[in-house]
Amino acid sequence: MNYFVTGGAGFIGSNLVDRLLAAGHHVTAFDNFSTGQRPFLADALKSDRFALVEGDLLDKPVLTRAVAGHDFVFHLAANADVRFGTNHPDRDLQQNTIATFNVLEAMRLNGVKRIGFSSTGSVYGEANVFPTPEDAPFPIQTSLYAASKVAGEGLLSAYATGFGFQAFIFRFVSILGERYTHGHVFDFYAKLLANPNQIEVLGNGKQRKSYLYVQDCVDAIFTVVEKATEPVNVVNLGADEYCQVDDSLGWICDRLGLRPQVNHTGGARGWIGDSPFIFLDTAKLKSFGWRQKLGIREAVGRTLDYLRANPWVLESRKAA
Amino acid sequence: MNYFVTGGAGFIGSNLVDRLLAAGHHVTAFDNFSTGQRPFLADALKSDRFALVEGDLLDKPVLTRAVAGHDFVFHLAANADVRFGTNHPDRDLQQNTIATFNVLEAMRLNGVKRIGFSSTGSVYGEANVFPTPEDAPFPIQTSLYAASKVAGEGLLSAYATGFGFQAFIFRFVSILGERYTHGHVFDFYAKLLANPNQIEVLGNGKQRKSYLYVQDCVDAIFTVVEKATEPVNVVNLGADEYCQVDDSLGWICDRLGLRPQVNHTGGARGWIGDSPFIFLDTAKLKSFGWRQKLGIREAVGRTLDYLRANPWVLESRKAA
Repeated sequence: MNYFVTGGAGFIGSNLVDRLLAAGHHVTAFDNFSTGQRPFLADALKSDRFALVEGDLLDKPVLTRAVAGHDFVFHLAANADVRFGTNHPDRDLQQNTIATFNVLEAMRLNGVKRIGFSSTGSVYGEANVFPTPEDAPFPIQTSLYAASKVAGEGLLSAYATGFGFQAFIFRFVSILGERYTHGHVFDFYAKLLANPNQIEVLGNGKQRKSYLYVQDCVDAIFTVVEKATEPVNVVNLGADEYCQVDDSLGWICDRLGLRPQVNHTGGARGWIGDSPFIFLDTAKLKSFGWRQKLGIREAVGRTLDYLRANPWVLESRKAA
Repeated sequence: MNYFVTGGAGFIGSNLVDRLLAAGHHVTAFDNFSTGQRPFLADALKSDRFALVEGDLLDKPVLTRAVAGHDFVFHLAANADVRFGTNHPDRDLQQNTIATFNVLEAMRLNGVKRIGFSSTGSVYGEANVFPTPEDAPFPIQTSLYAASKVAGEGLLSAYATGFGFQAFIFRFVSILGERYTHGHVFDFYAKLLANPNQIEVLGNGKQRKSYLYVQDCVDAIFTVVEKATEPVNVVNLGADEYCQVDDSLGWICDRLGLRPQVNHTGGARGWIGDSPFIFLDTAKLKSFGWRQKLGIREAVGRTLDYLRANPWVLESRKAA
C-alpha cells in the first residue's frame, strides 16, 4: 500500500511512518517543519520506500500533486497547541479546519478515498459522562482547537456521505513517548532543568487526565483501519486509567531524584478552556481487538527518559 | 439596542429586521445580495433607525468597520443550499465556516460580545432519537452544509469560553412564510406552474420533515435571547409536528386546485445527505415560555399564497 502522512515529521506522524515502513509499505511524509523535526525521519530516509515532501497544507497545488498515486492518507498535521489558541484566533481555523478541507479536496481530485484523522478527546468539551463514549451527548466546545477538530470531523463525514470516502476519526487523549515535543512532561522537565528547587503547576494539580503511549496509539490506529468497516468510523483512543497532574509531577520528580517546592496557580483548570477531567471510553476500540500495553506511569517515564537522552529536542523547541 | 443582522436582506433576516424595528431598536442589515432581495427591506428603509450595508462577510475590513458600535449581532447570512453542496465543496467552508469566523473576529475587535446564530437541525445527521433534543448523541455529519454549521457552532462556543462572548445557537427546522425564496414549497410551485399535470418528487415522498412559520421563528429567537442566561445557549427551533413530503404536496395541490400525476424518484432520501426524518424536541424552547402559533399546514398555505402574490420572487431566483 501507498500511504501519505501529513505531519509525517511530527511526534505521532514519524512514529507512524516508521511503523508503516516496517510493515513493508510505501510512505510519503508531507510536513512544513513548523513543529516537525528532520531527525525524527532519520531512519525513514534510509528506506527506498520512503519519500519526504516539504510543503504546507495551505499550498493547494503542491499538496494536490503530492497526494497523487496514494491509496490512503493519514492526516495528522495540525496546530496542536490547545492552550494558547486565544492568542492567535485564526491559527486553528487555518492550520486545522482549512488545512483538513485542502487535504480532502486533494484526495477527491486524485481519487483517493480513505483517510485517517487525528481528532481529540477535547471535542467532548466538559463531558458529563465518564468514561466518555463516542456517542456522548452533543457537546459544547470550549477551545478553538477542539472547535477546529470538530469542524474537521464534520468535513470528513460529509465527504464520506457526499463523495464515497471512508473516514477513520481518532479521538486521542494526550499521547506520550519517544519524539514527544510538547505537553506537560515537556513543560515540567524544562522547568525543573531551569530550577530544580521550585516548580509552578497550572491549576490546582488535581486535574484528571488520561494519557496513551505512542506505540499503543499506533497499534490502535492500525487495528481500527484494518477492522472498522463503516463509511465513518469514530473511535476514542485512550487508556483505561487516568492520573492527576500532581501524580505525574511526582513520578517525574522521583525519576529525577528531585523534591521541588510545588506552587499551584489554583483553580480547577490549568487555563481557559482546559478540561478538568479527560477519560475516554475505549470499549469500541477494544471491540476491534486492541489492548493497551503500557500504563500511564511507564509512559510518563519513557517520555522523560527520551527528553533526557535528547536534549536537542528541548533546545529546538525553545528556539521556535 | 443597536442590532447588526448579517443576511439582513434574506428571508428570515429581513423578517427579523422588521420585527426589531417595530420593537423600537436600531438595526443595521449587512448583506451581499447573493440571495438577499432589496424589496424585502422596502419597509425597513423607510425607518431612520435602519441602515443597510452592502458587503461581503469575506471582506474583513468592511465587515469590521460595519460591526462597530452595535450591541448584538444576529448572524443569519449563510449558504443555505443543502442539496447541491457537493457541486461546489468549498462554498459552505467559505460562506459559512470562514464567514462565521470573520463575524466573530469583527465582534471581538469591536468589543461586541453577544451573538445569535442560525444553525440547523441538520447538525443531528441521521438522528436516532425523536423528537431530537439538543443533547442528542454526538452525531455524524451527512452534508457539507451541516458540517459547516457544526463548525460555526464550535467557533461561537470557543469564543464564549475564550473571549467571554454570550452565544445563542438556534438549530432551525426548515422555515416557511412570507419572503420564502427556496425550499420544497418553492420547488413544487415552480414545477406545477411549468406543468400542472405532472410533478416529480425527489425520494419516495415519505420523508418526514418538520417546518416552522417565520413569525413563530422570530418569536422564538426573541424569547431565547431575552430569557436564556448561559454563556452558550443551544436551542432547537421547531414545531411539535411533522408531515410527509407527499402531505405537503397534497396541501399545495388542493390550494391550487390541481390533481397532477406524481412521480417519485424513489428511495428514502431526496438527495445524498438528505435526512429522511427531521423532528426536533422543543421542550427547551418552550421552557422559556415560547408557544407555536401556526401549524405546518397553515404555514405551507401562507408560503404558497406569498409566492402566488409575488411572482417576481420566482423570476428573481430563476435569473440567479
